[in-house]
Amino acid sequence: MNPMMRELGARRSVIRELFEYGSRRKREIGAENVFDFSLGNPSVPAPDTVRTELIRLLTETPAVELHGYTTAAGDMGVRQAIADYLNRTYGVGVDAKYMYLTVGAAASLTISLTAILNPGDEVVLLAPYFPEYRVFVECTGARVVPVLSNPSDFQPDFAALEAAISPSVRAVIVNSPNNPTGAVLTEESIRRLATLLQTKQEQYGLPIYLISDEPYRELVYGDVEVPYITKYYANTLVCYSFSKSLSLPGERIGYVLLSPRAEEADVLYEAICGAGRALGFVCAPSLFQKMIPACLGLTSDLSVYRTNRALLLEALTGMGFRVVPPDGAFYLFVASPEPDAVAFSERARELELLLVPSDDFGCPGFVRISYCVSTEQIERSIPVFRRLAELYGLTAK
Amino acid sequence: MNPMMRELGARRSVIRELFEYGSRRKREIGAENVFDFSLGNPSVPAPDTVRTELIRLLTETPAVELHGYTTAAGDMGVRQAIADYLNRTYGVGVDAKYMYLTVGAAASLTISLTAILNPGDEVVLLAPYFPEYRVFVECTGARVVPVLSNPSDFQPDFAALEAAISPSVRAVIVNSPNNPTGAVLTEESIRRLATLLQTKQEQYGLPIYLISDEPYRELVYGDVEVPYITKYYANTLVCYSFSKSLSLPGERIGYVLLSPRAEEADVLYEAICGAGRALGFVCAPSLFQKMIPACLGLTSDLSVYRTNRALLLEALTGMGFRVVPPDGAFYLFVASPEPDAVAFSERARELELLLVPSDDFGCPGFVRISYCVSTEQIERSIPVFRRLAELYGLTAK
Repeated sequence: MNPMMRELGARRSVIRELFEYGSRRKREIGAENVFDFSLGNPSVPAPDTVRTELIRLLTETPAVELHGYTTAAGDMGVRQAIADYLNRTYGVGVDAKYMYLTVGAAASLTISLTAILNPGDEVVLLAPYFPEYRVFVECTGARVVPVLSNPSDFQPDFAALEAAISPSVRAVIVNSPNNPTGAVLTEESIRRLATLLQTKQEQYGLPIYLISDEPYRELVYGDVEVPYITKYYANTLVCYSFSKSLSLPGERIGYVLLSPRAEEADVLYEAICGAGRALGFVCAPSLFQKMIPACLGLTSDLSVYRTNRALLLEALTGMGFRVVPPDGAFYLFVASPEPDAVAFSERARELELLLVPSDDFGCPGFVRISYCVSTEQIERSIPVFRRLAELYGLTAK
Repeated sequence: MNPMMRELGARRSVIRELFEYGSRRKREIGAENVFDFSLGNPSVPAPDTVRTELIRLLTETPAVELHGYTTAAGDMGVRQAIADYLNRTYGVGVDAKYMYLTVGAAASLTISLTAILNPGDEVVLLAPYFPEYRVFVECTGARVVPVLSNPSDFQPDFAALEAAISPSVRAVIVNSPNNPTGAVLTEESIRRLATLLQTKQEQYGLPIYLISDEPYRELVYGDVEVPYITKYYANTLVCYSFSKSLSLPGERIGYVLLSPRAEEADVLYEAICGAGRALGFVCAPSLFQKMIPACLGLTSDLSVYRTNRALLLEALTGMGFRVVPPDGAFYLFVASPEPDAVAFSERARELELLLVPSDDFGCPGFVRISYCVSTEQIERSIPVFRRLAELYGLTAK
């Protein structure tokens, strides 16, 4: 038996554990009395086009064609439609021949990392980061180098980043909009990051890949824009998923997109195909591949998230909690009023508020609140958050 | 970049290469003039229940529930339905809590191997074997030990097998009905295999896992039965896929099922969950998970395969080709009339017959004919096979 896999299977993630506690607790005291902010599971339905297009395909396309194998990289017509959409929307020159459809963002990441990395390599993660990144990197035999972002705005700390990029660093993972902070990398941050990576790869004479994990690309608030990262740096792989934008997290459909300007793009793309093959992916689910062209540019109704964000941000800030207003995703990252966020999370749990402590995100001292819940849950939770604030003697503003 | 992934992506499989040659050739001289027997892509449509059940789910189930994350191992109701079906049908005592739903048989295999193996371990493959097994094993850092089966009936060569099971062997993969031979392991073969593995694991004091890859379980001819392997050996993992039985190869839905009698089953199951997590699978596609209970026990219309098998077997045997009659799957494994099967395949290709040489299956000197094509293609190909037989001076019987 493989001890690393055994350990990974036995040690549940903190998020998952809290969610399962919540499920039990709801059975004990009633769902309306538990305020579960643990999971990033979209709470608004998929756009109706998803349903109508799936039914149309099932009704009109011969089954042998509809459910048959596609090429390993995905149906070329679908890949072309996505590339055309990206080029039209973001003015980038991406190419369908460097796109590889996957069973979602996690697969996009494991395939990209497996294609790029060798044992002993290092991967920089900007903390706070999604905890599974560490799992994916370490399973290739590479090592994680976390670099804490600036806690005032969660933009990269460039001095720390520069110091962290040793000759062993082969990739940097960015996640914008970010899970757990909701921060969006500014264009200035991306330019500085690109310049730094360019300098370092020239200095070391080896490529450093920028892996952009962006399942939350469409979930932004106000007039915030998420710059398209291939414009700024050549050695870029975009990992995308339709899970959040179309509220399809269980269906597992996404892609890896390699920049056409990447060094030896053809060879790296072959390595991506090789990694997909080695990991056992075969092809992305055929029916969901074929649904994509009709749904490009659509999103679920994001107004619920907008309302929830505004309500919760105003309430918590008003109670004296420290929060950096998130520009995207559906998470609020709140500073713990005591140094130990686990202790704070436990105290909140006694009030039936389920908040994820941030230690596993590589950035202690915070809790993550997933506000992809009903607005009614947000409203009913506010008096409970107030009791929590009072327990800590926070000062209402 | 990882050199192994690069190599895997660049070196296309022989099957895929021949298929792509066929696609080009069909455009050049017309599809009706190319006899493509390269791919194992089901040619009969999925049973209509697949379509009606998918549409029912899309119409009746709220989208947030239908398309949401399931637990990583899959929806417990679905797993229970599958376990109940297996227990009812095969009289086995399998348990839903040891089932892990996957994106198809390839994923079932990579997850099982990743859970079990450590670098330096060995895995026995009974040759001929599906070429991707080698890829999946080698990517865990383990080594393949091929053991050629008895060419008269493609049952295991037990003397060779016993000699091959060193203390480093941690798993044996069996595939029944077999790709590429169509052979089904007899109950006697399974009993002997179980006894041998039991003896060896006692001798070495370490478990040896039997991995049964069985996507062709339901595709059998005559009154042949495929014994359910968990009855015979405790340390067994069944890797299943609905790709072939329901003609859904592109949809990627299957499972790993660990025998409840396996040593430390709970711990090994955790390692399976850990491997699924590490490889980036998250969960099997939710809509297709939920479709399964309505389709258990159904198959596509297998009569086409039955007709094709009978036609081709009679014709080729009559022309003097040597074929072991296959009991299952949709492949005919034909002895090459010259020692070099690649040369034979090339000669066949000059007649527009696309037959896969067996070298990559670990058993040189044969070609694989995938007869999951239209019966009309079979009928039209027979005179062409006759010309091929004449080229080799085979004697009609």
